Amino acid sequence: MDSDFAAYLHARRADIDAALRAALPAAPECPAVLAEAMQYSVTAGGKRLRPILCLASAEAVGGTQAAAMPAACAIELIHTYSLIHDDLPAMDNDTMRRGRPTLHVVAGEGFAILAGDGLLTEAFALLAGAPESGDAAASARMLRVIGVIAHAAGPFGMVGGQALDLAAGGATTDRPAPMSAAALRTMHAKKTGALIRASAAAGAIMGGAHDGAIGAIETAAAEFGLAFQIIDDVLDVEGAPATLGKTAGKDAKAGKPTYPAVYGVLAARRMAAECLGRAERALQSVHLAKSRLMDIGRWIVDRSH
Amino acid sequence: MDSDFAAYLHARRADIDAALRAALPAAPECPAVLAEAMQYSVTAGGKRLRPILCLASAEAVGGTQAAAMPAACAIELIHTYSLIHDDLPAMDNDTMRRGRPTLHVVAGEGFAILAGDGLLTEAFALLAGAPESGDAAASARMLRVIGVIAHAAGPFGMVGGQALDLAAGGATTDRPAPMSAAALRTMHAKKTGALIRASAAAGAIMGGAHDGAIGAIETAAAEFGLAFQIIDDVLDVEGAPATLGKTAGKDAKAGKPTYPAVYGVLAARRMAAECLGRAERALQSVHLAKSRLMDIGRWIVDRSH
Repeated sequence: MDSDFAAYLHARRADIDAALRAALPAAPECPAVLAEAMQYSVTAGGKRLRPILCLASAEAVGGTQAAAMPAACAIELIHTYSLIHDDLPAMDNDTMRRGRPTLHVVAGEGFAILAGDGLLTEAFALLAGAPESGDAAASARMLRVIGVIAHAAGPFGMVGGQALDLAAGGATTDRPAPMSAAALRTMHAKKTGALIRASAAAGAIMGGAHDGAIGAIETAAAEFGLAFQIIDDVLDVEGAPATLGKTAGKDAKAGKPTYPAVYGVLAARRMAAECLGRAERALQSVHLAKSRLMDIGRWIVDRSH
Repeated sequence: MDSDFAAYLHARRADIDAALRAALPAAPECPAVLAEAMQYSVTAGGKRLRPILCLASAEAVGGTQAAAMPAACAIELIHTYSLIHDDLPAMDNDTMRRGRPTLHVVAGEGFAILAGDGLLTEAFALLAGAPESGDAAASARMLRVIGVIAHAAGPFGMVGGQALDLAAGGATTDRPAPMSAAALRTMHAKKTGALIRASAAAGAIMGGAHDGAIGAIETAAAEFGLAFQIIDDVLDVEGAPATLGKTAGKDAKAGKPTYPAVYGVLAARRMAAECLGRAERALQSVHLAKSRLMDIGRWIVDRSH
């Protein structure tokens, strides 16, 4: 990663973290126990990939960071809720996340469920409250963004992907037949890919892009999402817990299908590189290949955690 | 209940049930196991109080049922998700609901959590997709409604109320001091009242009401919400499981504060009647006391389950 891009990521992360802190519900209007639980997980220090992608998409099409920031924050709140619920004993039963005990370990399952519910709901409150009253163009864009995000996060997208994952062996003892490569790809496209794609689409929409550019950015982001998952699987096999901040080798041990398990590590890494090639061609078609978006794609593939 | 109002409820319920069926995600785009879990709980046959209140509010201010139906359905999806999560072992640990085993009993905790997440998310997808593209007035109203519903359902409202309930003794063994009457009222205003109030507000907004009428309808609905909770507590003490469709006396046994426990049954029933008086005065101030809204208030207080 060149130092210019590293500085870019650092600056965007600082802006996003400040906006997230301002967006989180606080006591006394929100019960303190709930506010603390939500804050614990949101401030645990993730990569902020999705909000950065959202802001970079807005910037690529000539929009402002301010226009895209509510969508960027809402998506990170939704991502955080999904991690909290995914870590629950009834789901993946993970006790460590981003180097800290998971929320249900420190706050109990009930408050972890509620904190997730609260973050998901607050994401939509944040979006609905963002456009200035009377700005019809901004309102219409935001309504479209709410639809894009809800569709990507819901039963057709992320929650649907979680259901496929759980059905494939998550917490059941009566394990069904192993997942095929095609089913694995569908599961990840929903579970991880849909929200990454929506992050880029939301930024492009709020940035005022025309439909052609939105479509190309979505295509590129779908490739980024696939690359992200492939590399995630590779790091799960190769990584050490200290670097990952979570239990390494867990997916493989749980008998979950992974890209390295199906294709081998080298072929999996080559597949991730091919995703970047396809993303670049999509962005070239609308003259956006020189934007920050490809830097983000390379960061996804080259990361070590 | 007079036969005219009984026919009104019957007709509205049929319309709402048809709209809910059409709104529920279906296979194969949504994984079948998830679609079935969501459908199980949504079609379990509740009273449909919230969506009926939403439609009646729109009608009271001269709006159409069609304009308010997406909000009515979204609110019922959110109400259903809250019941699913509230029934989980980590929360109230309820095994019966509306006369049937709760979702986590039949589908497992993991799918119950996901079905709840899916219903909550799909509610916002439904709202965002409802206005016709290009209808700026309808889009602006819908964005306002999304904000009202998300605020009422989230950490400041329903989820916040659940957190207060859980903190007061829900599933903990280390029970804190008993809740005061004021704290009990705050908890219920958030947990139950906020979404009932938002149901009425959403209907009035989509019906095109002016802010004065919206405010009066919200005031009346807040009183309905309080009356609803008082009567719920009374029925929990008096009721038989066959009529209630859930475990009777459970709240009292769990040591949760209830209105009859704090005030006695007769005083609690009188308090509910006083709510109706205040609601009627609020509606009279905007000449809406002759609408269906007061019939709904009386239904809330006179119901036996």
